[in-house]
Amino acid sequence: MSILVVGSVAIDSIKTPFGQRSEALGGSATYFSMAASFFNKVNIVATVGEDFPKKYIALFKSKSIGVDGLHIARGKTFRWKGWYDYDLNTAHTVYTHLNVFKDFKPEVPRPLRKSGCVFLANIDPELQYNVLKQIERPRIVAADSMNYWLEHKKKAFERLLDKVDVLLLNDAEARQFSGESNLVNAAKFIISAGPKVVIIKKGEHGVIYFSKSSHFIAPAYLLESIYDPTGAGDTFAGGLMGYLSKVPKINEAGIRKGIIYGSILASFAVEDFSINRLLDISMKDIKKRNRHYR
Amino acid sequence: MSILVVGSVAIDSIKTPFGQRSEALGGSATYFSMAASFFNKVNIVATVGEDFPKKYIALFKSKSIGVDGLHIARGKTFRWKGWYDYDLNTAHTVYTHLNVFKDFKPEVPRPLRKSGCVFLANIDPELQYNVLKQIERPRIVAADSMNYWLEHKKKAFERLLDKVDVLLLNDAEARQFSGESNLVNAAKFIISAGPKVVIIKKGEHGVIYFSKSSHFIAPAYLLESIYDPTGAGDTFAGGLMGYLSKVPKINEAGIRKGIIYGSILASFAVEDFSINRLLDISMKDIKKRNRHYR
Repeated sequence: MSILVVGSVAIDSIKTPFGQRSEALGGSATYFSMAASFFNKVNIVATVGEDFPKKYIALFKSKSIGVDGLHIARGKTFRWKGWYDYDLNTAHTVYTHLNVFKDFKPEVPRPLRKSGCVFLANIDPELQYNVLKQIERPRIVAADSMNYWLEHKKKAFERLLDKVDVLLLNDAEARQFSGESNLVNAAKFIISAGPKVVIIKKGEHGVIYFSKSSHFIAPAYLLESIYDPTGAGDTFAGGLMGYLSKVPKINEAGIRKGIIYGSILASFAVEDFSINRLLDISMKDIKKRNRHYR
Repeated sequence: MSILVVGSVAIDSIKTPFGQRSEALGGSATYFSMAASFFNKVNIVATVGEDFPKKYIALFKSKSIGVDGLHIARGKTFRWKGWYDYDLNTAHTVYTHLNVFKDFKPEVPRPLRKSGCVFLANIDPELQYNVLKQIERPRIVAADSMNYWLEHKKKAFERLLDKVDVLLLNDAEARQFSGESNLVNAAKFIISAGPKVVIIKKGEHGVIYFSKSSHFIAPAYLLESIYDPTGAGDTFAGGLMGYLSKVPKINEAGIRKGIIYGSILASFAVEDFSINRLLDISMKDIKKRNRHYR
């Protein structure tokens, strides 16, 4: 079952207490697809500017990541600059230059409209909805969002929720959307709004899975060395969806295994800046850490 | 074994997405002693101003919390005003008025110098050290600190570490002090500097225990409703030390149980503003949640 992701492909400049990088490859669709590519063919729907380095396009291709839906627009690529203090859960933004992303109208190339596994990374929920409308009967749809959309596009987000199987939010977003301080109640509220499953991401502290009938906690892999937490959530989603795209039937046991793969992929991603660590590792390394995690 | 805590007794004004309170009882020694008082007699060493409400003194006494070491100085009580967004792990300070706390020279009343169980809450490490020097052979000493002291009083903090059995730090502080991004390496570094045990607090996500030979993760109690996270760390310490003050021999199994009691107490504390929830509950409620947690 092939995977489609819509999201951002960006150029990031990042500083943490443990180092810094300028003009590195970033963006939600980038992290997601790099992680998912360990499991299956992934296609990106996103936009970049004319300044986007050709070597990154080549890099995607070398990982069997389809770029037919990666539109090269006139102008500059989306850029984000930020820093983290020792509390690596909190990103501090220096600037966000949307650039070509401002006019992003995602269009799914015809051959990709039969994708079975769809990830709607954190973009305007109206765009997420428009992408979804272009897909013919996907088998599983997961989505992410952020505080800005929950506040300013709540209606559009609610309309989307009804079409989403798995929603990923961080704990603050889950509280914000539900108005509930209790995460269990927040999850119940979210599930009543549409998704079958909600996965609440607690940054470096792991995730909590909630469905109508059960919940469980998956702690983060403890032994990771966090050098740069950027993209951890999208990498997690890539591992989860990559794994699910390979199982014959998607059920709770599968999602549980997928969550562990997602956590493992994220634990690698944060060990270096940008996607560098993900380029280093093989499925063998992932399986080894998976055994250790369990 | 009686318990002694040195720290702050303060007046807090707090706003969260779920409500707000003005001029409420706060401070590290307050939260700690309220939690520990479920287990044993606690004595506070702290200072307040002449404006400190008499009813709070009466409240301490009603909980068998000793106030012989609570010095009433000329001037105003320490005041903190802050707020939290939906990310309840991050406190935003509006102001910190040290007031009488600026000239705090903690003195331990003679009868309390034989306290077996000592908690040095987050104050200047020089003061923590001076308090400790006044105690005759304590059986267990635990200490907390914060980023400011780790940066500005590192030498004093290192001198203190050598005398501390259990150090409590949050994850950011552990990384900052050790310069290690990996929490396992950070913990090893800290243990090599003196303490037998380091407990790394991950806010609402639980704690990790490290000793020379082992480590374990204690997730936070999931079902809590977080209305105000202020004082959760000190409440945790109060539950831990309260429990340890009652066991005949302090070993890893005991600390493990103490950590669970600490987590339970903290899960109650955050369910209301100030110490209000701790005033509501009995040992029966604590034991009930303890069974549920396990």
